[in-house]
Amino acid sequence: SCRKLKKKRHNLSQLELHLFFTKASVRLFIHKVTAPLHPKVDVSHPHILYSYIPFVVLQLLYEEWASYSVFYKYQPIGLIRKYFGEKVGLYFAWLGVYTQMLIPAAIVGVIVFLYGCATVDENIPSMEICDPRNNVTMCPLCDQACSYWKLVTACGTARASHLFDNPATVFFSIFMALWAVLFMEHWKRRQMRLNYIWDLTGFGEEEEVSVRNVKKNKASPDHSHICLFYLYVFKYNHVLAPTQSLDEKVKLTCSDRLPAYMTTVVMMCLMISVTFAIVFGVILYRISIKAALHMSSYPAARSNIRATVKTTAAIINLIIIIIMDEIYAAIARWLTTLEVPKTDKSFEQRLIFKTFILKFVNAFTPIVYLAFFRGRLVGRPGKYLYVVGSYRMEECAHSGCLMELCIQLCITMLGKQLIQNNLFEIGIPKIKKLLRQRKSEMDTKQEEELNKTLRRHEKDHFLGPFIGLNPEYMEMIIQFGMVTLFVASFPLAPLFALLNNIIEIRLDAKKFVTELRRPIAAKAKDIGIWYNLLRGLSKVAVIVNAFVISFTSDFIPRLVYQYTYSPDGTLHGFTNHTLAFFNVSDFQPGTDPLEPMHLGYKVDMCRYKDYREPPWSTTPYDFSKEFWAILAARLAFVIVFQNVVMLMSDFVDWLIPDIPKDISLQMHKEKILMVELFMKEEQGKRLTMRERNTPQQPRSRPNSHTNCV
Amino acid sequence: SCRKLKKKRHNLSQLELHLFFTKASVRLFIHKVTAPLHPKVDVSHPHILYSYIPFVVLQLLYEEWASYSVFYKYQPIGLIRKYFGEKVGLYFAWLGVYTQMLIPAAIVGVIVFLYGCATVDENIPSMEICDPRNNVTMCPLCDQACSYWKLVTACGTARASHLFDNPATVFFSIFMALWAVLFMEHWKRRQMRLNYIWDLTGFGEEEEVSVRNVKKNKASPDHSHICLFYLYVFKYNHVLAPTQSLDEKVKLTCSDRLPAYMTTVVMMCLMISVTFAIVFGVILYRISIKAALHMSSYPAARSNIRATVKTTAAIINLIIIIIMDEIYAAIARWLTTLEVPKTDKSFEQRLIFKTFILKFVNAFTPIVYLAFFRGRLVGRPGKYLYVVGSYRMEECAHSGCLMELCIQLCITMLGKQLIQNNLFEIGIPKIKKLLRQRKSEMDTKQEEELNKTLRRHEKDHFLGPFIGLNPEYMEMIIQFGMVTLFVASFPLAPLFALLNNIIEIRLDAKKFVTELRRPIAAKAKDIGIWYNLLRGLSKVAVIVNAFVISFTSDFIPRLVYQYTYSPDGTLHGFTNHTLAFFNVSDFQPGTDPLEPMHLGYKVDMCRYKDYREPPWSTTPYDFSKEFWAILAARLAFVIVFQNVVMLMSDFVDWLIPDIPKDISLQMHKEKILMVELFMKEEQGKRLTMRERNTPQQPRSRPNSHTNCV
Repeated sequence: SCRKLKKKRHNLSQLELHLFFTKASVRLFIHKVTAPLHPKVDVSHPHILYSYIPFVVLQLLYEEWASYSVFYKYQPIGLIRKYFGEKVGLYFAWLGVYTQMLIPAAIVGVIVFLYGCATVDENIPSMEICDPRNNVTMCPLCDQACSYWKLVTACGTARASHLFDNPATVFFSIFMALWAVLFMEHWKRRQMRLNYIWDLTGFGEEEEVSVRNVKKNKASPDHSHICLFYLYVFKYNHVLAPTQSLDEKVKLTCSDRLPAYMTTVVMMCLMISVTFAIVFGVILYRISIKAALHMSSYPAARSNIRATVKTTAAIINLIIIIIMDEIYAAIARWLTTLEVPKTDKSFEQRLIFKTFILKFVNAFTPIVYLAFFRGRLVGRPGKYLYVVGSYRMEECAHSGCLMELCIQLCITMLGKQLIQNNLFEIGIPKIKKLLRQRKSEMDTKQEEELNKTLRRHEKDHFLGPFIGLNPEYMEMIIQFGMVTLFVASFPLAPLFALLNNIIEIRLDAKKFVTELRRPIAAKAKDIGIWYNLLRGLSKVAVIVNAFVISFTSDFIPRLVYQYTYSPDGTLHGFTNHTLAFFNVSDFQPGTDPLEPMHLGYKVDMCRYKDYREPPWSTTPYDFSKEFWAILAARLAFVIVFQNVVMLMSDFVDWLIPDIPKDISLQMHKEKILMVELFMKEEQGKRLTMRERNTPQQPRSRPNSHTNCV
Repeated sequence: SCRKLKKKRHNLSQLELHLFFTKASVRLFIHKVTAPLHPKVDVSHPHILYSYIPFVVLQLLYEEWASYSVFYKYQPIGLIRKYFGEKVGLYFAWLGVYTQMLIPAAIVGVIVFLYGCATVDENIPSMEICDPRNNVTMCPLCDQACSYWKLVTACGTARASHLFDNPATVFFSIFMALWAVLFMEHWKRRQMRLNYIWDLTGFGEEEEVSVRNVKKNKASPDHSHICLFYLYVFKYNHVLAPTQSLDEKVKLTCSDRLPAYMTTVVMMCLMISVTFAIVFGVILYRISIKAALHMSSYPAARSNIRATVKTTAAIINLIIIIIMDEIYAAIARWLTTLEVPKTDKSFEQRLIFKTFILKFVNAFTPIVYLAFFRGRLVGRPGKYLYVVGSYRMEECAHSGCLMELCIQLCITMLGKQLIQNNLFEIGIPKIKKLLRQRKSEMDTKQEEELNKTLRRHEKDHFLGPFIGLNPEYMEMIIQFGMVTLFVASFPLAPLFALLNNIIEIRLDAKKFVTELRRPIAAKAKDIGIWYNLLRGLSKVAVIVNAFVISFTSDFIPRLVYQYTYSPDGTLHGFTNHTLAFFNVSDFQPGTDPLEPMHLGYKVDMCRYKDYREPPWSTTPYDFSKEFWAILAARLAFVIVFQNVVMLMSDFVDWLIPDIPKDISLQMHKEKILMVELFMKEEQGKRLTMRERNTPQQPRSRPNSHTNCV
């Protein structure tokens, strides 16, 4: 009857196992690996043979997966899943797909960057800035201490910022938006395929089901289920110790939960505001240090003020981010336990959600500030905006904040990855391990000889516990954010991500194989909430990039100038067009430079980068018509960009089927099989019934009639 | 073994049948309905009893569904599905949900409209316009024929346009955007429920499956399947006559299809351009007729020029739309047959897609023109934009084009619905029926007495054939577009739609029950491509409404004026602020009015609605700073509106689960049952196996080991 079918489906997973281990290969590995430990293994008996598979798998993983020498190879996902369970398998599969997809992105990114390098000498604006002939006197960058300066001195920055602020970046950010969609689709398909291969297509909320009905017939020899059940309960106790007792109670009412939720909301807001405060602190640091350096009389210090300040500030940011990350993680966990979620699934989801928000805000606040607020709140000469006393808000380098943004992103990405990888993912576990060994009071000699006698799982006790995949995922998601959100300002981000991930995969592999105890195999059909987070990020990325291009970069002003104001359709005169005039006599008392003759001649008009009316107009220093026109153009660009990209993404999404053709065909075939089986049996049943009792017979007709009359 | 389970699932559909017809009720109806025809029915025998169910169902439908008297009742979807099949059932279910969801929308819309009516007297701009004290001399509306006019004369329009151009409409369009999402979600859930009740949850591409495996064992007494199979094939022949032969051939190559696709693309473009041409023609009509009327010396004609022109133009548009609709439908069908799709599914999809594009463009081009282009391309006094010779592009009434847009929408919706419903859906079928009867040469008397003797299905031959649901769906989708796309400009749209649909449901019901032959029952799991079209429309609606509010209405200019330019934070002086000055001496020769003294005094400065520099500025008649500032504000509003609404929609979408709680629970339970059954049998099998052959035994362990070690 149905047995054939069920058997087929049941054996699917075993089948895969057999793919990896023909008896021969197992025997081979036993001789190679475990023979030394247990010399007289009777490999002839299949039962004993199979009992060694785990060791063999581990060995295989160690050689074929957890070493840098094979970084160019695909991961043995099947084996990973076999040994660590579906959840871990899916993580590494996802990481693999992500890394793979990063390759094209990185290549295009590098090309874009190279294009920037190639065209830096044809770039008219920077040429104009660097041309000493048109000597433009700029207004001082700080009160009193600083004096007027020549625009030529900003030549370096101007040239550098062209590398990241050129038309190619527009194309690149569109490309990356589509890339993100393609990545999603690609992963969906891969997941579907894995689900099919791993025989999870039927597996939904049945985790609980299989558990429950095993509870009933524990006697059944279906080990896999019981095993799953034990794992499940154990994991549950493990993660949810505080809430365990509550599970027997009646469902909690809203009023019970209210205080917890209140605490959560309040704490979250508090944490976020703390982040903002920190960022603001860094800004203050930057302002004050800059002022101080300006006052210092060493020309050496003055010369590379900007660079120094930027770099130090970025590093400080980085350190703070890394420290706060750990703190926030702890807080999120604490808050979630307060909420007492019912199942561990919801626990995990809530935890992830909180952690994500906190870490995301923590990682991106400084970047967002740099991208969108820095230099916008400056005010104008003679009427600057002052914060906490007499600190003037910092303004950007002459050619936009893009350069700063780049440095920030670069340092954050590289630093975060390097430090977190090396320090937290290699260092800490090693130290922990050492401590653990120290605890078990025995000198190395004894230990060694014990090692010989110890069984594998006994040795494993010395390894660190498995603390779940969420940190790994979180790290990757934040990285994905870096890659997609501000890619318009930093086309090399994908490259960095790629390099990091190539290491990351093997690093995690090593950790899983050698550093940590074997995790309890957990079944999972997909990567759960992480997928939604990715999707959300890739949606936000579109609008963020639109704003970066139109507001942070000078792309739009250049276009507008070239096609409306320029006398000869080129960018000649653009620099002059972007500079407003300021009459030095309009300085507020006490803010004018102490040494006005610094440049060697009397200055009565200085320039500053803004679109404002000149002093001699009827409304001096008001925003000029150009300002509003360009603002309109910028906003228009955002609208067009966002909608075009969204349309394209939707189109791509619609174009690619979620289920690979071959898989869907396979499933279809199986369904046919199922239906046929059912029908055959039905038929058989009918016949037997008819023989037994005739009155039953007409019962089969009516529905046929109602359909066919 | 699995039988119990399968039986349960099989009987589900029969179960529902029994819900409707206990033997008693059937007997009752037989006596009431069919007894007269066949007096001596042996109702005791269940077989004969059931053979009457179709008639009973039809009778039930006729009384409980296809009459206006029950318009307030829910439709008997179960019965409909029973008699007409799932596809028709789903259509009416969808129509029901849509109509139901329209009720709140209509209510809110009416409230918004009433708010407009209530606040029309507090509306400062219209008060200023209507105030005769500030007598503003406006520039002539056409060359020569027209003369200067007083702004006061535009009082009526100003007051009227406030009804549709007030802050409430902003709220309403946000509301409608969310409404659309809610509607989608609600329908998804309803569909899920129906799928479960109708036992379609397993039904995917298996339509072919069930067919195929019935082919093999035709002998099987499972009538329902065979029946489905016949229906299927018949329908296939019916719809796909031209392509039928090709199905046996090998798959067509790209090169074979290329010409067809080329033709399609070309024709589509052609058709669309034809639509544009027609709209442009109507515009020309409007311009010329206006000029002509202006020249006419009858004061009566002059007085209500605008109204006349608007209305006639709208009606012409309407008629053209309705005629073109029919033509386009034919063309789309022809093009699709050219493409020779493989299955009838793809045929239908392609047809729908083409028809949708053509009809959509046809229906919305005039509206889009009115909303976004009318009055934008006018030019300015002294430098007007002229089309085809000396026709000046038409400009809007003083207070925006919103009023015209409203009238257009109103007439289109009402007219389209009334005409299409009454003429095409009632008239045509009746006429067809008459003709068909005429064809069968027999005078009425003979026919009547034949009627007595004729069996039901014989009589049905005189009814019209069933031509599919696509026209019905299409009509509804276009209506949905009207309701969502331009709701910002016409809050009464949902009300009209609601009223129309209440009639529509019963109209279609009547048609299906009395006018048409019983359609061949077709299985369907969802409403297919229509859902995607709806989704697409509701996405487009957000951006369209954003543009309507910010560009077509005066909402943004009012805000900007109130919070930036206004001396006293109110709207006083807004009207004056929106009017630019024009020096009559700057008229192009031959365009100045023939009778300049029309108003009784010499005019040297006239006003026109635009943000331009006054004649005495350094750059006369250029766009002023206000223009750019307001443009920026408008664009900013679009960005904010779009993203906020999209965010809210996504949130709502995420908030509401696609599968109703109870249904998912039910399915879960069934899965448990399934798993338990499988396990029991497995267990039994294992035991028997163990008894038979012991070497087999260990085969069951390994996968347990690999999971549990």
